[in-house]
Amino acid sequence: METVKIGLIGAGRIGKIHAENIARRTFGAQLTWVADAFEAAAKETANTYGAQATSDPRRVLDDKTVQAVVICSPTDLHAKQIEEAAQAGKDIFCEKPIDFDLVRIDAALNAVRQTGIRLQIGFNRRFDPSFDRAHQMIQGGRIGRPYLVRITSRDPKPPPPEYIKASGGLFADMTIHDFDMSRWIIGREVEEVFAFGSNLVAPEIEQLGDIDTAVVSLRYRGGVLGAIDNSRQTAYGYDQRVEVFGSEGTVMVGNRAPTQVTVGDKNGFQGDVPMYFFLERYEEAYRLEMRHFIECVREKKTPSVTGADGRAPIVLAHAAKRSMTEKRAIRIEG
Amino acid sequence: METVKIGLIGAGRIGKIHAENIARRTFGAQLTWVADAFEAAAKETANTYGAQATSDPRRVLDDKTVQAVVICSPTDLHAKQIEEAAQAGKDIFCEKPIDFDLVRIDAALNAVRQTGIRLQIGFNRRFDPSFDRAHQMIQGGRIGRPYLVRITSRDPKPPPPEYIKASGGLFADMTIHDFDMSRWIIGREVEEVFAFGSNLVAPEIEQLGDIDTAVVSLRYRGGVLGAIDNSRQTAYGYDQRVEVFGSEGTVMVGNRAPTQVTVGDKNGFQGDVPMYFFLERYEEAYRLEMRHFIECVREKKTPSVTGADGRAPIVLAHAAKRSMTEKRAIRIEG
Amino acid sequence: METVKIGLIGAGRIGKIHAENIARRTFGAQLTWVADAFEAAAKETANTYGAQATSDPRRVLDDKTVQAVVICSPTDLHAKQIEEAAQAGKDIFCEKPIDFDLVRIDAALNAVRQTGIRLQIGFNRRFDPSFDRAHQMIQGGRIGRPYLVRITSRDPKPPPPEYIKASGGLFADMTIHDFDMSRWIIGREVEEVFAFGSNLVAPEIEQLGDIDTAVVSLRYRGGVLGAIDNSRQTAYGYDQRVEVFGSEGTVMVGNRAPTQVTVGDKNGFQGDVPMYFFLERYEEAYRLEMRHFIECVREKKTPSVTGADGRAPIVLAHAAKRSMTEKRAIRIEG
Amino acid sequence: METVKIGLIGAGRIGKIHAENIARRTFGAQLTWVADAFEAAAKETANTYGAQATSDPRRVLDDKTVQAVVICSPTDLHAKQIEEAAQAGKDIFCEKPIDFDLVRIDAALNAVRQTGIRLQIGFNRRFDPSFDRAHQMIQGGRIGRPYLVRITSRDPKPPPPEYIKASGGLFADMTIHDFDMSRWIIGREVEEVFAFGSNLVAPEIEQLGDIDTAVVSLRYRGGVLGAIDNSRQTAYGYDQRVEVFGSEGTVMVGNRAPTQVTVGDKNGFQGDVPMYFFLERYEEAYRLEMRHFIECVREKKTPSVTGADGRAPIVLAHAAKRSMTEKRAIRIEG
Repeated sequence: METVKIGLIGAGRIGKIHAENIARRTFGAQLTWVADAFEAAAKETANTYGAQATSDPRRVLDDKTVQAVVICSPTDLHAKQIEEAAQAGKDIFCEKPIDFDLVRIDAALNAVRQTGIRLQIGFNRRFDPSFDRAHQMIQGGRIGRPYLVRITSRDPKPPPPEYIKASGGLFADMTIHDFDMSRWIIGREVEEVFAFGSNLVAPEIEQLGDIDTAVVSLRYRGGVLGAIDNSRQTAYGYDQRVEVFGSEGTVMVGNRAPTQVTVGDKNGFQGDVPMYFFLERYEEAYRLEMRHFIECVREKKTPSVTGADGRAPIVLAHAAKRSMTEKRAIRIEG
Repeated sequence: METVKIGLIGAGRIGKIHAENIARRTFGAQLTWVADAFEAAAKETANTYGAQATSDPRRVLDDKTVQAVVICSPTDLHAKQIEEAAQAGKDIFCEKPIDFDLVRIDAALNAVRQTGIRLQIGFNRRFDPSFDRAHQMIQGGRIGRPYLVRITSRDPKPPPPEYIKASGGLFADMTIHDFDMSRWIIGREVEEVFAFGSNLVAPEIEQLGDIDTAVVSLRYRGGVLGAIDNSRQTAYGYDQRVEVFGSEGTVMVGNRAPTQVTVGDKNGFQGDVPMYFFLERYEEAYRLEMRHFIECVREKKTPSVTGADGRAPIVLAHAAKRSMTEKRAIRIEG
Repeated sequence: METVKIGLIGAGRIGKIHAENIARRTFGAQLTWVADAFEAAAKETANTYGAQATSDPRRVLDDKTVQAVVICSPTDLHAKQIEEAAQAGKDIFCEKPIDFDLVRIDAALNAVRQTGIRLQIGFNRRFDPSFDRAHQMIQGGRIGRPYLVRITSRDPKPPPPEYIKASGGLFADMTIHDFDMSRWIIGREVEEVFAFGSNLVAPEIEQLGDIDTAVVSLRYRGGVLGAIDNSRQTAYGYDQRVEVFGSEGTVMVGNRAPTQVTVGDKNGFQGDVPMYFFLERYEEAYRLEMRHFIECVREKKTPSVTGADGRAPIVLAHAAKRSMTEKRAIRIEG
Repeated sequence: METVKIGLIGAGRIGKIHAENIARRTFGAQLTWVADAFEAAAKETANTYGAQATSDPRRVLDDKTVQAVVICSPTDLHAKQIEEAAQAGKDIFCEKPIDFDLVRIDAALNAVRQTGIRLQIGFNRRFDPSFDRAHQMIQGGRIGRPYLVRITSRDPKPPPPEYIKASGGLFADMTIHDFDMSRWIIGREVEEVFAFGSNLVAPEIEQLGDIDTAVVSLRYRGGVLGAIDNSRQTAYGYDQRVEVFGSEGTVMVGNRAPTQVTVGDKNGFQGDVPMYFFLERYEEAYRLEMRHFIECVREKKTPSVTGADGRAPIVLAHAAKRSMTEKRAIRIEG
């Protein structure tokens, strides 16, 4: 089996997860470059896995032995780096979102199209074994025709204000995952969106002009309906549930707990809280999405999460925001 | 303990349930009259419990020994019968909805107010032990401040076309219960409604101009958000779930199954489907709402489900329908 | 449908439950006599349901219109009353246990055999909808050949010392139900028993020479194995679980909770404790066993819980006790 | 942090797991030697992790840089290798069982005692996060005084006949884990054992004179009782459940499923089967037990699973076998 040589661009929190998965938890892959604007960060990760470090991503793109890059830089660099990597002929894994600006997204996707390189967007949840199994069941007809999709997606605690500022707002930062999940799991595009948003949890988020709680309604092709609820904070950890209800039954994905312990006493029977946050909950999903990417690179297959899949949720996030402001349903142009 | 004498007006499916609960399952109550336009139906129920039968509700109202009436007639008679019973000085239990017309509802509620009689509306789900306990927990601060309410309410199969015709539409017939549930369980009024509806299940319902599937979004006072989903048909029975998510936790009411049997084999571990429909699921709730009514009559207390509670969900049902047509959020006038 | 006239002998706690079920919750049955050594007790129950009261059971047996008797007197009277009722030609429902003395049991069963009347023993748990369903599944081959049966049966709190004195000891009083459950649910007889007992919960039980905690091992025909655990006290209510493990799978019956409420907070996700005790847990089972008895009387069918079913667990209880003392397995003579 | 150099003795299935955990999944450890009688096997594993390979364990013991050895050879070599490694001054991790012969076990433990080296026995289940948490809860008093421990431990399928031949029999091969679990989780020693065994699953096991199904009863110090059930085969995967019932409540550890998917349809609501077998179920436990061992070696701490913990379950296994044959409880000499 040929070893795929990979350069990492951006060695922050997510970048480090991908580095570990590439270097240690995927057969047939080698991490050969780590680029980060903070050279110390690049070096730290590079040293751990025996890669070269640089503060200039250009050096990674110039290395002819590098077949693919994994882009985990700040969001505002994604689109440009996709274009540059595409022009350098590298296959690309890029963290979500591609960008908040559709013009820039389209330019990036255009570069990808013209060069014919592979692009996979980091919607990791699709690779979670539970969601993947539910998806397979639904695609396989286990619940008949889908009627409704319901998603609960709540974070354990709000990110810091600096993160909120660059996040694109709740719909583009949090709901984006749920938009992707819903499109993918029922295999249908959204036609109409409506959103209510509130400030209930974090005054600092309100001061930044963003919301912390939302309910989003969706209408998909064929009249399938959807409801998503989001919150930036829970008392009990990371809450990630999906249900798809159809003509022959309903499939539900529940939370995962770190233990299977239940204690019964005079107050009731109590089980564990869910795993704390995305790093724990989606540990395996991160590993599996990277394995999929490396397999696509090696075998010259099209990744299952395409550039179009990266674009669609941004369209929906913008529509949700406009809907919330204009208090009306927004139609999505196909 | 004084025995409360009660006249039943309307001896259809629900009327018979109330008759049984009054006559056999509540201490200190006696069913003395059964009125039904079909005299044979009146007689059948009356004979079972040793009551008098009539096809004319007037005779019940004229009987001075009757303290209270239970109105289970067709919906279009409710408002008028409330007025007449109020004028006859009888305390009233009336099945939901009071009417679909707010003018008629207000006339009926006005008569109730002027005569000072007691009126309880038949929102039976409030008396279900699980919902009641969740309500108490929430009111008692167990989950802190409420942020979100989610309701799934799906029937096992659609009613016949004749029922649909007189039903007032899905929002006034099915969602009405969920509107009531949500207002009551979080103790807040709705400020804005948005609804998507679809025809996915039953072509005959579409032909009658109604929908069979819906997702309704709500915004309550203080910014609390809500999402309701409804379907006229499931493959697995009656689906009645409620979740209220708040600052300190989340409280969830799940479905009730007829048995506690789980079978594990090579395909997985399988438990029972939920109880089939409302007669099974809410058997105890029907008994407890009637017990509450009789207690209010005897002890001259105000029932916990008031005329205003009967009116509010109708306002919401109209708003939801208008929202669906106009594709915009509808503001509820306080 | 012919109305079956029934006399109740013994109007204590269980007697009252049967009285209510006969008089109010079973079609085609009438409670015509209530006998109790305490005439006041007989009168109270008799008056509630319009029956005649007596302190002398003989009067019930002498009434030619009485078709069947329900014996709920103290255990030491059961055997003699069965004989007398059999000789009077009455069909008999008798609470468990028939007696603790096998000689007296055999005399009673002999009288039943000779007179050809019907006898049903009050092993109510067989009629619980969950256990009944599990039984049907197992008999229907759902889990293949049975390998193992596991029963957990724990009471919420110990009975008073006076009850313990007359109880025949834990094996004859508590485990008797589990012996019956296990024989019935797997459809096999026990060949060997071994028991460990302990005093962990209630010093007053130890002073009376009884135990409060036990683990019983069983070997059934064909090598099927069993394990029962019992305790006279839990912190969390009545614990009644059964599992039968077989070649194709495993069927488990779990506890029933009064509500379906789950609350999640920082400590975990907590559901309800089980229903408190047998009156709540087996309310429906008591009703269904009486319905079965009355149906057998009316239709001249053999009850599904026979006299032999009443005898076998007593043999096992004696063997368990002897095993505990002699610290060896006791073989059950077929 | 000092890197602990480790030699692996035995590169079979379990040996490979430990190799991976030492080399890749534990910080501060290095696998420097792999010894296996089959030199090819030694080489394969050694090459994967950059270690030296040998067919002679002596070479590992002679390497002064090796601080600790991990013994995963066939059981009949364990005791001798422990002695030799102890004499070479190496800290030792040894797979269970130490041996089936108490004389040999005692000789090995004696060598350990005299040399003062560290010895950890591979009771991996203690390191499973669920069992570990239950253990902590119990030790912390969460359920008060323990009354009863119940363990279900069933394998998905029987091992091949060659394995059975060398296994020491079901009690020494399977129940050994449950004996250890029960002693550890309630923190008490066994005083009496009784066992029933059967041949229900695998005729080839019967031909080898072993059993495939068992129920074991235990009495611990202070009168605490226990029940273990074992089977060599299930239709639904690996079944590993533990319950400890005490004065203030009960703590239960359930099975772990690979996904959190539930599908509801007309037949019921079905969740996943448990993880297939011990490699999947205890993946994390294997990693954590090795991490604990390496930490003990580095920090010169006593491992939590001692030589005495390796000896006690063998005593119990012998007693269980004798009990099954003699059909009586066997007293364990302290």
